[in-house]
Amino acid sequence: MTSAVARIATTVSVALSGERGYEIQIGSGLLSTAGERLQRVARSGHVVILTQPKIAALWGGALRDSLCAGGFDAPDLVTFPAGERFKTVATMARLYDKLYNLPRTVERRTLIVALGGGVVGDVAGFVAASYLRGLDYVQVPTTLLAMVDSSVGGKTGVDFRDGKNLIGAFHQPRAVIADLETLKTLPSREFRSGLGEVVKYGVIRDPSLLAPNRLEVSQSEALAEMVRCSCEIKAEVVSADEREESGLRAILNYGHTVGHALESATRYRRYKHGEAVAIGMAAAACIGEAAGVTPVPVREAVIAACRVQALPVKRPSDVPVEDLIALMARDKKAEGGVVRFVLARSLGKAELMGGITETMLRAGLALQDEVCGREDGNIGEAVR
Amino acid sequence: MTSAVARIATTVSVALSGERGYEIQIGSGLLSTAGERLQRVARSGHVVILTQPKIAALWGGALRDSLCAGGFDAPDLVTFPAGERFKTVATMARLYDKLYNLPRTVERRTLIVALGGGVVGDVAGFVAASYLRGLDYVQVPTTLLAMVDSSVGGKTGVDFRDGKNLIGAFHQPRAVIADLETLKTLPSREFRSGLGEVVKYGVIRDPSLLAPNRLEVSQSEALAEMVRCSCEIKAEVVSADEREESGLRAILNYGHTVGHALESATRYRRYKHGEAVAIGMAAAACIGEAAGVTPVPVREAVIAACRVQALPVKRPSDVPVEDLIALMARDKKAEGGVVRFVLARSLGKAELMGGITETMLRAGLALQDEVCGREDGNIGEAVR
Repeated sequence: MTSAVARIATTVSVALSGERGYEIQIGSGLLSTAGERLQRVARSGHVVILTQPKIAALWGGALRDSLCAGGFDAPDLVTFPAGERFKTVATMARLYDKLYNLPRTVERRTLIVALGGGVVGDVAGFVAASYLRGLDYVQVPTTLLAMVDSSVGGKTGVDFRDGKNLIGAFHQPRAVIADLETLKTLPSREFRSGLGEVVKYGVIRDPSLLAPNRLEVSQSEALAEMVRCSCEIKAEVVSADEREESGLRAILNYGHTVGHALESATRYRRYKHGEAVAIGMAAAACIGEAAGVTPVPVREAVIAACRVQALPVKRPSDVPVEDLIALMARDKKAEGGVVRFVLARSLGKAELMGGITETMLRAGLALQDEVCGREDGNIGEAVR
Repeated sequence: MTSAVARIATTVSVALSGERGYEIQIGSGLLSTAGERLQRVARSGHVVILTQPKIAALWGGALRDSLCAGGFDAPDLVTFPAGERFKTVATMARLYDKLYNLPRTVERRTLIVALGGGVVGDVAGFVAASYLRGLDYVQVPTTLLAMVDSSVGGKTGVDFRDGKNLIGAFHQPRAVIADLETLKTLPSREFRSGLGEVVKYGVIRDPSLLAPNRLEVSQSEALAEMVRCSCEIKAEVVSADEREESGLRAILNYGHTVGHALESATRYRRYKHGEAVAIGMAAAACIGEAAGVTPVPVREAVIAACRVQALPVKRPSDVPVEDLIALMARDKKAEGGVVRFVLARSLGKAELMGGITETMLRAGLALQDEVCGREDGNIGEAVR
């Protein structure tokens, strides 16, 4: 049987109204049994795998074999180019076209499988949300970031102009299958980027996630536990506030207000998402201090936790405060023209707060420069 | 007060889970009190009216005044060109751009008002569904077709390639305000097109809607009652099967399988939607007879009801059966490559049925030609 391969395996449930709840399966070697697993949620034998060429080359064959072994018809494979800059309405149109032109007609019962990182999951999820007014889909995340964050919770979408995820939908997957084996081919910088979101969970909910040591992909048990713990927090928050209405879900956005603005200001080319979030968390900690919400030791702990994981905390010197503030006004959490911020009251406790004035913002960003220094702007410049 | 203007006024409720229920208000002169009415559902003072230039010229001013009188800020007005051929992903992108570039930032609490006919409602609804992952919107239908059908029930979307409404979302409005006054400026052919959907409700649920006489816009009371009755049927069906999962909601698609295929084959230029649906209903009646489901007198009554309202029932001579069948395979109700058809068992009772073979389809279409004749193809050719 497959138990020799799937050594580590655990499940986290996402509770949702109206029979929409689903399971996140986390383990090593799960891809080889994905076919069986997906039979439980599929409504037909027709599967379309949406992915990127590189991921298709690495894991597409294993997934395809597994689906066939599980009783599905040979799945269709549809790819689109890698990278946040392809997360666009134009890509959506091209994917609609590819789906429309598949030899086998995509029907309401066709299952979409999103195989890849955050960009694949967000785009494929939005394709699934909007094609024929909604197809079932499952997430098969292949990056740490997607496993602990973006594959769970049903947020899908694409970027538009300066706005990250400006266009999209809430559309919950039918299952998430996180095979930790896929992380072994992940570039180290991508892995660390995912740790940015893990640190976030530590700050907003469970300080035990703020590891005292640098985490590595080779630490299988620790990794599985970390993914499980992160997914549990996300699942709990999403269950309680699926569509970000009560303000609770917004805490998952800790560090993201400044993070998104930085990504946008640098055209999604300089930072990995988790890196921008780390700088954003350092900013949020300092803004929290300036607003009298975040105590000094908490601010220090947030910054230290990022540094332990080798994540950046310095703001880049070439993005003026004015630009950041203008971009933040576009934040989806804004209300009445006022940006709302998620701030930490203590380690493990964060809250969405109004009343953060521009003065506090500027004071916080200045404090960040003072305690973290300024980045000279060359981090990862040439990575993509 | 406004009671002198709003002589006729009635309300139909759409019951939905999770506090998403809403009211359809039907009456004469309701536009002048829309501001007050919308205050009950709005979450901010910011309203964006999405409409077409012609509708903006006719009713935009009245709606704007009414909103201001109701306590809203002066609303933003965003327009896009009229016609089904602009119901595209490209139009969506242009509208995202217009929203993004409004002087006042569109936020999650901004209310979108769709002012216009079916195309406006479908496109504006999908914009609302997808901008910032979902904004509240209300429908202010200005055509009979939109009043009795497309403004109610939350189906939004755009056409793609040969597929009508292929891309879209289920996104329920917060309210529908149907001002019968707006029908007075509606071209007669548009009005009759709306009657196509009314006949549909008569066939699938309430034969009292199959009027013995030709209906005119001047018959205010009869018109209000007809709209109310149609909306009640739609509300009831949508409440019971919001996302078209049980097969019940599909009965609203009576006549639409062939109708959509005809619209697509003629590039949305020849027929008004209700006209294509009328031909499609005649086809469905004949296919039902060929399948042994629809009794002869029912088939005759369906065709007669269309003719009474001066709606077409003949298939066009320049669209081959092969083309229709190929297009129907794309129908969203298809399952396992087999088109499912809504067929009438008696007047007032329709059902979604599988097992309709290509032989039955062909026999039904041949029967339609025999009893209705063939259209020479010039209906409305130059209308748009």
